Amino acid sequence: MKIHVVNPNSTAAMTRTIAETARAVARAGTTITASNPAHGPASIQGYYDVAACMPGLLEEAGRHRDADAVIVACFDDTGVDALRAMLDVPVIGIGEAAYHAASLISTRFSVVTTLPRSVPGLEANLVRYGLMARCGSVRASRVPVLDLEKPGGEAERLIAAEVRLAVEEDMAECIVLGCAGMAEMRARLAEAFGIPVIDGIGCAVGFVETLVAAGLSTSKAGGYASPFVAEMA
Amino acid sequence: MKIHVVNPNSTAAMTRTIAETARAVARAGTTITASNPAHGPASIQGYYDVAACMPGLLEEAGRHRDADAVIVACFDDTGVDALRAMLDVPVIGIGEAAYHAASLISTRFSVVTTLPRSVPGLEANLVRYGLMARCGSVRASRVPVLDLEKPGGEAERLIAAEVRLAVEEDMAECIVLGCAGMAEMRARLAEAFGIPVIDGIGCAVGFVETLVAAGLSTSKAGGYASPFVAEMA
Amino acid sequence: MKIHVVNPNSTAAMTRTIAETARAVARAGTTITASNPAHGPASIQGYYDVAACMPGLLEEAGRHRDADAVIVACFDDTGVDALRAMLDVPVIGIGEAAYHAASLISTRFSVVTTLPRSVPGLEANLVRYGLMARCGSVRASRVPVLDLEKPGGEAERLIAAEVRLAVEEDMAECIVLGCAGMAEMRARLAEAFGIPVIDGIGCAVGFVETLVAAGLSTSKAGGYASPFVAEMA
Amino acid sequence: MKIHVVNPNSTAAMTRTIAETARAVARAGTTITASNPAHGPASIQGYYDVAACMPGLLEEAGRHRDADAVIVACFDDTGVDALRAMLDVPVIGIGEAAYHAASLISTRFSVVTTLPRSVPGLEANLVRYGLMARCGSVRASRVPVLDLEKPGGEAERLIAAEVRLAVEEDMAECIVLGCAGMAEMRARLAEAFGIPVIDGIGCAVGFVETLVAAGLSTSKAGGYASPFVAEMA
Amino acid sequence: MKIHVVNPNSTAAMTRTIAETARAVARAGTTITASNPAHGPASIQGYYDVAACMPGLLEEAGRHRDADAVIVACFDDTGVDALRAMLDVPVIGIGEAAYHAASLISTRFSVVTTLPRSVPGLEANLVRYGLMARCGSVRASRVPVLDLEKPGGEAERLIAAEVRLAVEEDMAECIVLGCAGMAEMRARLAEAFGIPVIDGIGCAVGFVETLVAAGLSTSKAGGYASPFVAEMA
Amino acid sequence: MKIHVVNPNSTAAMTRTIAETARAVARAGTTITASNPAHGPASIQGYYDVAACMPGLLEEAGRHRDADAVIVACFDDTGVDALRAMLDVPVIGIGEAAYHAASLISTRFSVVTTLPRSVPGLEANLVRYGLMARCGSVRASRVPVLDLEKPGGEAERLIAAEVRLAVEEDMAECIVLGCAGMAEMRARLAEAFGIPVIDGIGCAVGFVETLVAAGLSTSKAGGYASPFVAEMA
Repeated sequence: MKIHVVNPNSTAAMTRTIAETARAVARAGTTITASNPAHGPASIQGYYDVAACMPGLLEEAGRHRDADAVIVACFDDTGVDALRAMLDVPVIGIGEAAYHAASLISTRFSVVTTLPRSVPGLEANLVRYGLMARCGSVRASRVPVLDLEKPGGEAERLIAAEVRLAVEEDMAECIVLGCAGMAEMRARLAEAFGIPVIDGIGCAVGFVETLVAAGLSTSKAGGYASPFVAEMA
Repeated sequence: MKIHVVNPNSTAAMTRTIAETARAVARAGTTITASNPAHGPASIQGYYDVAACMPGLLEEAGRHRDADAVIVACFDDTGVDALRAMLDVPVIGIGEAAYHAASLISTRFSVVTTLPRSVPGLEANLVRYGLMARCGSVRASRVPVLDLEKPGGEAERLIAAEVRLAVEEDMAECIVLGCAGMAEMRARLAEAFGIPVIDGIGCAVGFVETLVAAGLSTSKAGGYASPFVAEMA
Repeated sequence: MKIHVVNPNSTAAMTRTIAETARAVARAGTTITASNPAHGPASIQGYYDVAACMPGLLEEAGRHRDADAVIVACFDDTGVDALRAMLDVPVIGIGEAAYHAASLISTRFSVVTTLPRSVPGLEANLVRYGLMARCGSVRASRVPVLDLEKPGGEAERLIAAEVRLAVEEDMAECIVLGCAGMAEMRARLAEAFGIPVIDGIGCAVGFVETLVAAGLSTSKAGGYASPFVAEMA
Repeated sequence: MKIHVVNPNSTAAMTRTIAETARAVARAGTTITASNPAHGPASIQGYYDVAACMPGLLEEAGRHRDADAVIVACFDDTGVDALRAMLDVPVIGIGEAAYHAASLISTRFSVVTTLPRSVPGLEANLVRYGLMARCGSVRASRVPVLDLEKPGGEAERLIAAEVRLAVEEDMAECIVLGCAGMAEMRARLAEAFGIPVIDGIGCAVGFVETLVAAGLSTSKAGGYASPFVAEMA
Repeated sequence: MKIHVVNPNSTAAMTRTIAETARAVARAGTTITASNPAHGPASIQGYYDVAACMPGLLEEAGRHRDADAVIVACFDDTGVDALRAMLDVPVIGIGEAAYHAASLISTRFSVVTTLPRSVPGLEANLVRYGLMARCGSVRASRVPVLDLEKPGGEAERLIAAEVRLAVEEDMAECIVLGCAGMAEMRARLAEAFGIPVIDGIGCAVGFVETLVAAGLSTSKAGGYASPFVAEMA
Repeated sequence: MKIHVVNPNSTAAMTRTIAETARAVARAGTTITASNPAHGPASIQGYYDVAACMPGLLEEAGRHRDADAVIVACFDDTGVDALRAMLDVPVIGIGEAAYHAASLISTRFSVVTTLPRSVPGLEANLVRYGLMARCGSVRASRVPVLDLEKPGGEAERLIAAEVRLAVEEDMAECIVLGCAGMAEMRARLAEAFGIPVIDGIGCAVGFVETLVAAGLSTSKAGGYASPFVAEMA
C-alpha cells in the first residue's frame, strides 16, 4: 500500500527525517512518500501556526490522492479532522498515534514537548481523544522545534531532564515524545531511563497499515462527512 | 470602544444581518464593524470548512487592527484560539458566548444547530470549555446554513421541532441557537416555548464590552503567546 | 438599568468598597445599589457561614424588587441558586462571573482565595459550573477575609506569593482573586506578574448588563422554577 | 448510642414517619430522636426551600448537642456541609446514604424523585459526591412531596411508572427513592420490580452507626473546620 | 514475528474461527498461533466467568513463552492487565483494540454486544481506557455468545436491529462488534449500514505488529511490574 | 447475622488479624468468620496476584454459603464483582468500604498504600466507583505487604511520612490506609496527625450490617446476574 506523510510545516529537512523514520518501520510492500508545503510556518508552535499552516496542509494532502492512507506528521494533529472529511482514506496524526500506543503498554504516560505554548493544544487533544485519562502530565522542555535540528545543541539534555521529572514526580511509566523532531533521540532516552519512549511516526505508520489491512476507513456518516464546498486546488 | 465582527464565511448577506444584530445590543459608545473574507466557503458546515476558511479569517482580522475587541461570528468558534494568539485584544466566538450565557440563566441548556456534521465539533468545543457539564444535548435540525436565509422556507418549523424535543426529552431549561443565521427567529421561539432562547451574537458583544470595561485582555503567557512567525499579510 | 448588589456578610465597609468597584465599570445609564444584612456572619468563611448568612441574604434581595438584576458579592456564590428561583431577574455570583471571564482570556486560570476551609466549596462550584476543566488550582493564601481590610497588613504579600506559585507550578495564565475584599489589589498584581488578574465584581456587572441588554433572564422551567412557599418577608 | 434525625421541613407528620423508619433498622442500643423546625417550608422542593429552611435546620441541630451522630432527613442533603462544620459528630444526609448504598449493590442505579425542580439539585449532589458515575438517571414523578402523605392518592402509581422507565430505558439495576416521604412504599416497589429499592433513612442510620462504631467522625481539617462565628442560638 | 492468541473460554470451535480471522489480516512474516484452556467457562458472559477463566488463561499464556506478542481474544479484555505484568512482550485485548481503532475513524462509535450482563464490564473498561469519551452507547443484542455459532439462528437479525438503533438514536458513526464470535458478520453489516463495522481481532493483530515493529513493549515500571510470586505452571 | 471475611491471600496470620479487627467493631449478634485460600499468592501486590488468587478466592467464598454477607479483605477489592454475581448476599471489598466512609467525613481523602505497582489498580477502582472525585492522591509507601507483619520494622515510619505529604501537599483531610495489614497502626496515625485515619475492615463490617438490616442485597438484574456456568466446587 502507499502511505503519504504530510509535514505541515515548511522545513524540508524535517520532512526528510520523518520519511526515513516512517520507512524504517513500514511493513514490506508499503511505500512511504512525504511532502511539506512550500510556504507557511517553518514550525508549528501554538495555535496561530496551527491555523496558518492549514491551507498548505490541505493543498499537500490534495496533491497525493493516490495514497491509501495519510499521516499528519505534526504532534498537534493539525488538520486531521479536516483531512478525514476531505479524503476517503484513513488519516492519522502522530500525536494521537503516540497516545494510543502509550495506552496499550502502560497505565500512565507523560508527554514531553517543546514550548509551553504548545501544551494547552496537546492537552485539549488528549481530553478530546479521552486519553487524558491515561496521561500523567504534558511537560514543556522549553526547546524550540527548530533547535531540535541543531547538532551539538543542549536539546536532548533539556528533554531528558523533563523525562526524569515525569518519571519521578508524575509516576509516568512510559514517555511520549511530543514533537516529530525528537524521533532521533528516542532509542537513547529509552535506554537511559529503562522505560518505553514513543515517537509517534512509527506508531502512525503501523496503525494506518492496520486500518487498511482490516478494510477500515474513516466513517463518512456524521462529523467526517465529505465537504459540500469545492476543495482548494 | 470599537468591536470588529468577523464572519468567517464569504456570504455578505449573513455578515450584514450579524452586524445589525450586534448593533442592536451594543452599549452607547460602542462602534460595531463587520466583514467577511472575499473568498472561501460560503458557509461553515463541518471540519473541512473550518479549516478552509482559516486564511481568509486571519486576513480579515489582521485588517482591523484598530479594534478594541474581535468577535468571530461563527458558531463553531472557528479560529478563536489562533486570533487570541495573533491579537492583543479580547477575542470571543459566538458559540462560547452563548454557552456561557446559558450557564448563567439555567441549570441545563440544549443547542439546536444545522446539520449533523456540525454536532461533533460543537460537542468538542463544549467539552473543552467545560460547559458540556451544563449541556443536555446538541441537536441537528438538518437545515443547511444557507437555507436559513431563504424566505418562506420551513427552516423555522424544523428548528422549533428540535427545540420541543430538547425541552420534552432532554430537560432543557434554555435553548442555544447553534448558527449565526438563526438570530432572526430567536424572539419568536422564546415566545412560543416560554423559556430563554439565546443567540450568541448579542451575548458576545456584551461579554467583550465587559472585558474591555474591566481592563481585561487575553493572557499572552502560555497558550496564547504571540506567534513567532510573520503573520499573513 | 438598575443593578442591586447584595453582600451576604454583615460588614458594611466591605459593601461600600464593593459598590464603588461595581460603579467604576458599569455602563452609562446603569445604577448600582448595594446592601448587606444587618445581622449574620461578618465574613463568609466556610460552609457554616454560607448557611448562616442565608436568611439575611434572602431578606436583602427581597427588599430590592425593583432591580433589573442582582449580584451576590460573595466569592462562594452564596445563595445564587435560591435567588434565581426567588426572583424573575438575572442573578449572578461574583465567583462564577470571574471564572467565566477567565475562561474567555486564558486556557488555564488559578484561583487565589483566603483560608483553606473555603477551598472545597469553591472547587465544588467550579465542578458544578464545568469550569474546573479550565482551572489549574485553587490556592489558599491563609489570609482571613477581614484582614484584607486592615491597612498595612501583609495580606497582599501573602496573596502575591500564591499568585507566583500558581504561575510557576500550576501553569496559570490568568489569576482569579477569590474574595470580594481583594478587588483593591487587582491592578497592582496584574502589573507585577504581567498576566490578567480578575476581580469578580467588575465582570459580574458587565455580564448581567449583557443579559439584560440581550433580553435574557433566568429560566423558570426546571431548577429555578418560582417557589411554592411564601417568601420570607 | 444516640442518633438525632432532623427533618428540615416543618411537617411534623413526616418527622414521625421518618423516626419510625429509622427505629425499625437501628441496632440494639441505638436511640433515635427526631425533630423538625417549628417554622419554615412545609416541604423542600427546589433551591429556594433549601435556603429557606436553613436557619430552622441549624437551630434544631444545635438543640441536640448530646447526639452521637446527626442525620438530615431530606433527600437534597440540605445543610449537611454546614452541620459537618458546626458539629463534632458524624453527619449524613439520606440522599448520599442512599447513593452510597446503591453503589454497593448494583453497577447502575436510578433515582425517582418528586418534582422536576428538584432534579438539578440532586444531580449536582451526585456529581459532587462522584456517584453520578454510577447513576443512570434522576427521574421526576411529578408528585409533590405533600401528596405522598395523602391516603388513596395516585402517587405510588406515578412513581412506579418512573421506576419502570428507569429499568427498561436506563438499565437501572437498583432504584433509589428520592424523597423521605416515599419510604412507606419501598417494600412494595421492590417486590413488584424484583430489584432492590432503597430508602435513604435506613441506610443513613446504619452508616452513622458504622462510623461511630469505628471511632470515626468528620475531619476538622479543611472544608469542615469549626466555624469562627458564634452559632445561631 | 509470532503472535499467540489466547481465547479465554474453552470453546475450541471459537478459537479456530478467531485464528482464521487473525491470519487473514496478519502481515507477511507473521505467524499466528491460537489456543484455549481445556477447562473453564465455555463462554465469558459477565463478571463470574471473567474470574473463573483466569487460571486457564494464565496457564495458556504461560505455555507460549516464545511469542513476540499475545492477544486476548475476549471482548472483555479478560486478564490483559495480569498478562502485561506476567509477560515481557506486548499484550492486547480485542475489546481495547476495537475501541482504539474506532476512535481513529469516527467521532463517535457504539458497541453492540451479547447479553445485558456484559454491558457494565465493557463500560467500565471504556471508562478506564478513557475511550468512553468517544462511545455513544454499549447496546446488548440479548444474543448469548454460543448462539452466535448456531447456523441459521436469528443472531444476526437481532444484532443488526441494535446497530440500527445505535445509528439512528445514538448518532453512532461506526460500530464495534462486542464479541469475538461476531467477526463473521462484520462485512455484511458494514455493507448493509454503509458505515465502518469493527471486529477487534483484526485490529489487535495489526496493533501488536505495530508495537513489535516499533520496538515497543509493556512498561515494567509501575502497574505492570513483573510479579514477585512464582507463576502458575 | 453471620458475616464471612475472605482474605484472598494465603497468609493465615493476616487472616487472624483481620478477623480480630472485624470482631472488634461488629454489632451485638453478628458472628464473624474468616478464611483464606490454602494456596495462591502470599500477598496481593499488583495485577498478576489479583488474577492468581481468583480461584482460591471463589472457592473460599463458595465454602461459606451460610453467610448473610461476605467481605473481601483485600484493598484491591479483588473478585468483588465476581462474588456479587456468584452469591445472593451482599458482598463488599475493604477498599470500597474505606473510600465510601472517607467520603462521608471529609471533602478530600488520600490513600496510602504499599508498593507503586498497586497504585494503578486502586486508582482504576476509584474511577470506577466515582470516588476519585473525592480522592486527592494515592501514595505508595514502598513497604511490601508482608513487611507490615514484621515487628520492629520501619513500615510505620515510612507510612507516616506519606501521610504527612498527603496532608501537606495534597490537602488531604482524611487518610485511608491502603492495605488490610495496616489496621493495627490506624489509631496511632490518627492520634499523631489529628485527622481521621480509616481502615477498611471496620467500615466494611458496618456497611454490610447496614445492608442486611435494611433488607438490601445485590441486584441480580444486569451486571451481577447469577452465572450460567457451574461454579467451581
